[in-house]
Amino acid sequence: MVLRLSTLFLRTLRDDPADAEVASHRLLVRAGYIRRAAPGIYSWLPLGLKVLAKVEAVIREEMEEIGAQEVHFPALLPKEPYEATNRWTEYGDGIFRLQDRKGADYLLAPTHEEMFTLLVKDLYTSYKDLPVRLFQIQTKYRDEARPRAGLLRGREFIMKDSYSFDIDDEALEESYQLHRAAYVRIFERLGLEIIPVTATAGAMGGSKSEEFLHPTPIGEDTFVRSAGGYTANVEAVSTVVPAALDFTTAPAAEVHDTPDTPTISTLVDHANAAAPRDDRAWTAADTLKNVVLAARLPTGEREILVVGVPGDRAVDLKRIEATIAGHLGSGGEVAVETATEEDLAKHPGLVKGYIGPGLSLEDPVLGADATTGLRYLVDPRVVSGTAWITGANQPGRHVFGLIAGRDFGWDGTIEAVEVREGDEAPDGSGPLIAARGIEMGHIFQLGRKYAEALGLKVLDRNGKLTTVTMGSYGVGVTRAIAALAESNHDDRGIIWPRNVAPADVHLVATGKGTEVYEAAEKLAAELESDGLTVLYDDRPKVSPGVKFGDAELIGVPTIVVVGRGLAEGVIEVRDRRTGEAQNVAVDETAAFLRRLTAH
Amino acid sequence: MVLRLSTLFLRTLRDDPADAEVASHRLLVRAGYIRRAAPGIYSWLPLGLKVLAKVEAVIREEMEEIGAQEVHFPALLPKEPYEATNRWTEYGDGIFRLQDRKGADYLLAPTHEEMFTLLVKDLYTSYKDLPVRLFQIQTKYRDEARPRAGLLRGREFIMKDSYSFDIDDEALEESYQLHRAAYVRIFERLGLEIIPVTATAGAMGGSKSEEFLHPTPIGEDTFVRSAGGYTANVEAVSTVVPAALDFTTAPAAEVHDTPDTPTISTLVDHANAAAPRDDRAWTAADTLKNVVLAARLPTGEREILVVGVPGDRAVDLKRIEATIAGHLGSGGEVAVETATEEDLAKHPGLVKGYIGPGLSLEDPVLGADATTGLRYLVDPRVVSGTAWITGANQPGRHVFGLIAGRDFGWDGTIEAVEVREGDEAPDGSGPLIAARGIEMGHIFQLGRKYAEALGLKVLDRNGKLTTVTMGSYGVGVTRAIAALAESNHDDRGIIWPRNVAPADVHLVATGKGTEVYEAAEKLAAELESDGLTVLYDDRPKVSPGVKFGDAELIGVPTIVVVGRGLAEGVIEVRDRRTGEAQNVAVDETAAFLRRLTAH
Repeated sequence: MVLRLSTLFLRTLRDDPADAEVASHRLLVRAGYIRRAAPGIYSWLPLGLKVLAKVEAVIREEMEEIGAQEVHFPALLPKEPYEATNRWTEYGDGIFRLQDRKGADYLLAPTHEEMFTLLVKDLYTSYKDLPVRLFQIQTKYRDEARPRAGLLRGREFIMKDSYSFDIDDEALEESYQLHRAAYVRIFERLGLEIIPVTATAGAMGGSKSEEFLHPTPIGEDTFVRSAGGYTANVEAVSTVVPAALDFTTAPAAEVHDTPDTPTISTLVDHANAAAPRDDRAWTAADTLKNVVLAARLPTGEREILVVGVPGDRAVDLKRIEATIAGHLGSGGEVAVETATEEDLAKHPGLVKGYIGPGLSLEDPVLGADATTGLRYLVDPRVVSGTAWITGANQPGRHVFGLIAGRDFGWDGTIEAVEVREGDEAPDGSGPLIAARGIEMGHIFQLGRKYAEALGLKVLDRNGKLTTVTMGSYGVGVTRAIAALAESNHDDRGIIWPRNVAPADVHLVATGKGTEVYEAAEKLAAELESDGLTVLYDDRPKVSPGVKFGDAELIGVPTIVVVGRGLAEGVIEVRDRRTGEAQNVAVDETAAFLRRLTAH
Repeated sequence: MVLRLSTLFLRTLRDDPADAEVASHRLLVRAGYIRRAAPGIYSWLPLGLKVLAKVEAVIREEMEEIGAQEVHFPALLPKEPYEATNRWTEYGDGIFRLQDRKGADYLLAPTHEEMFTLLVKDLYTSYKDLPVRLFQIQTKYRDEARPRAGLLRGREFIMKDSYSFDIDDEALEESYQLHRAAYVRIFERLGLEIIPVTATAGAMGGSKSEEFLHPTPIGEDTFVRSAGGYTANVEAVSTVVPAALDFTTAPAAEVHDTPDTPTISTLVDHANAAAPRDDRAWTAADTLKNVVLAARLPTGEREILVVGVPGDRAVDLKRIEATIAGHLGSGGEVAVETATEEDLAKHPGLVKGYIGPGLSLEDPVLGADATTGLRYLVDPRVVSGTAWITGANQPGRHVFGLIAGRDFGWDGTIEAVEVREGDEAPDGSGPLIAARGIEMGHIFQLGRKYAEALGLKVLDRNGKLTTVTMGSYGVGVTRAIAALAESNHDDRGIIWPRNVAPADVHLVATGKGTEVYEAAEKLAAELESDGLTVLYDDRPKVSPGVKFGDAELIGVPTIVVVGRGLAEGVIEVRDRRTGEAQNVAVDETAAFLRRLTAH
């Protein structure tokens, strides 16, 4: 059916919406694809639904191609399954919770691992039933603290989520790789540049995980890549760990008064003057900065801990958050922040500005044997035998040449500092460079976490009950549309990739006579019978300038103008992206467009 | 793509689910279309989604046929628009409410009048933009007190809802009639018998309204019809009002002691003995029963009122609820119940068992001039001049021959008693008969209620701002699937109408040799390339009995058996509904099935 602008439910806007920070948000609203209903919650107008249907169709095809079967779960779900996996607690404020009229607890599902696990448990009993791969394209809910950027970070949004169920790790790896390949094809077909990066599993649990990032300066995720092909989310980069050093001949550490050393640089100068080393001068990288942090567990508990990092690097709380849960023995997301004055006041052994690794000692060389009882984690660069300048746990005093593993110990090692451009890639593929991206997809090898929690076991080849191993895989469907608009626009509007455009052709009739409208009608009918979708600007009293402006704003990649040229027997075909125009003979226009738009 | 039972995510069940009361619920679960996730909340399995997609496609086509444009609104919506129309309060416990992390109030939308009104207000400004008709196929939420019967009354369900916006009443009537005709076509194409009945607007507000009921003994709605073609929801039946009588010559009413008249029948006997009439004997229909009711308003207030009805009829609280709001000047749904002892105790003027229309009088013939201040509504049969036997507001005493309009008045007339089979249809088309049905669709002329509340005005032909008039129209999509299964099954399973079946053909291969599987594969491929959808039971180790049982349970209308006959060059084609089977030559089977299944 030809979409006529004279009746299409659409009003383009000249002005940017007040709340729009990014181009995709501005343009999708202005061009009449979406409208805001509440913070992070959008309504879809007719043109928006056309794009959405195209994106969904591509995803659906590629999922079916890898043998995934479509199902559909409710969004409104009871608490119990999420309690069984502890996510009811772990999600904290991040989900919408509600009660029904009887007072039973429900949530609006942010993701469906539990329900898929229970459904497979309900239906299947044997290894012969596996593998099974299931997917849905469904509305998800997250109570984001800061919904932003239109569809990029919404509170009600559409995801394709799929789940694989396998009998063993090898089969899981196959399901995972099939999904990975399907995702590469999906984004390629959508025309969306994607970089798969190694990621951390986060609240999902599980072992192996990759994010599909769309590189864009407005992305919220920082990732790194090397010339040799390494890519990772910054949270997932592992530090190249230096070799341990022999400390048998290292001199004893010395405690010094360190007046007037307000900065690391002045402290280093002081050390080089007061306790110079034979082999090389002290640098900022030799200082050990002990940072007091507070971890908020999903249970609501607050643990105060200390992290020791080289003084030349800034602490990166997001990297700490990515793996801290394991150290604390906690499932789920743990939020980490700098300890407050109030936290510090509860630990008088911490001498602010002079905190050492041995937290409550008179003599810091005794090291970790006599701490305040606070957990002490260190950056991976703190290996046995390294010598450090650090606080002496006494006001106004530092210790120089404190040897890791000799003079102090630690409870664990954690990736705690910023990744910098120029750092070595962990696989030796060269120095890292940084970029920003949006997470468009995420694939996880969940392993047996959910199956164990919910009792999903099947009989194996030997008739023994065995726990199923799972993967989960997500694509942000509505987010993909925003990313496409973000990366395909100019200052006049959107420029859709052909595969997702709301129509194949935007046909504009301009002029006062009836001939142009008659010719345009005829062309529209011909194109439609050829299977092309046509957006036809048939508005009689609208100026050519407004019509062209709307066409460029809406962003169908091919704009066809039936106007002045008609008298000479030609129709103009414009490329929205390049702006190039050519005249095509009226009789040949339909065939020309058919070739041009053939997917 | 051929759906293979060897890999299809499906397990049929031998046993009925414990919570299933009706056939559609039992069979949709047992045949693997849906699974319960929570009370009134269901997950859709692959076969279920196929049926759902077909039903949605029919609805979408018919909506587009009447020029309705598809949009999509969020399910999670802020309180404010629903407050503007007072529905936030009026819905009471019937909707799911929640708060976000900032404490802002939200609801899961039960229907979207407010949001569509605001969207049209956002986009349109002139009569030239009208009419506009918009629809969505979307997930709705209602916190039903008693979710039941599987998909028939759920808490999360899919509806097609549409809304029309017109400049005047005449144009609204046209939008309404277009929808009405589209609904008739939709249900005809789905194969679902429907009776459109006159209905009351209920909480929706507005003037004209019709329900599309699917007649079935398990329906929750009672409706009536006459031989002459009248149909109505019982709540909407209007009583044939008798003509007023001249009372100038009527004798004065008499108050009598009425001992030993515990029933209406004994009271009538007493009247005929103590105060006989000249023209005809008193009957139960001449007694006026005054019933004290309590109305709970959406605001939480409780109003005690009295309703006077003929003693031969039972009060019908649902019929009272259908129109009481207007009498009380209340928007929204008002619940009505019999007054409690506690309510009565607060009104000592009400002499239990002897309540008359003049509620606190010594002398009831003084009528309504001196009531207790309680609202007094009467059945439409109480017309001026009618003579009644009723309570005298004194213990142990009744009054005989109390004349309506002479001896007592009333605050209003209300449809308050049961409709009975045999009552006259209000349009004179003969006596009514009663039946039960399920509401499959509902169409409303809303008028200007929502547009006024939300300020939707456009410029009319004269450049004057005028309030838009609206209609709203709903079809229960998931409910339609349940109704189809309910009305199309036998004791072995579902029998889908062809237009909504999950596949065109259910192909069963039976036998141990490879030939049957090869022949079946070949046929499946051929059918698929002809555009037919095939559900193929290719399970190698499953007995023919189980395969046929599953085929009959699943309910594809045509079952094709490649088995024993293959040796003689034939394939069996069975009709699921009639059980009739015929053998078709192998080479001709595909063509035969193409003809058979041609829609």
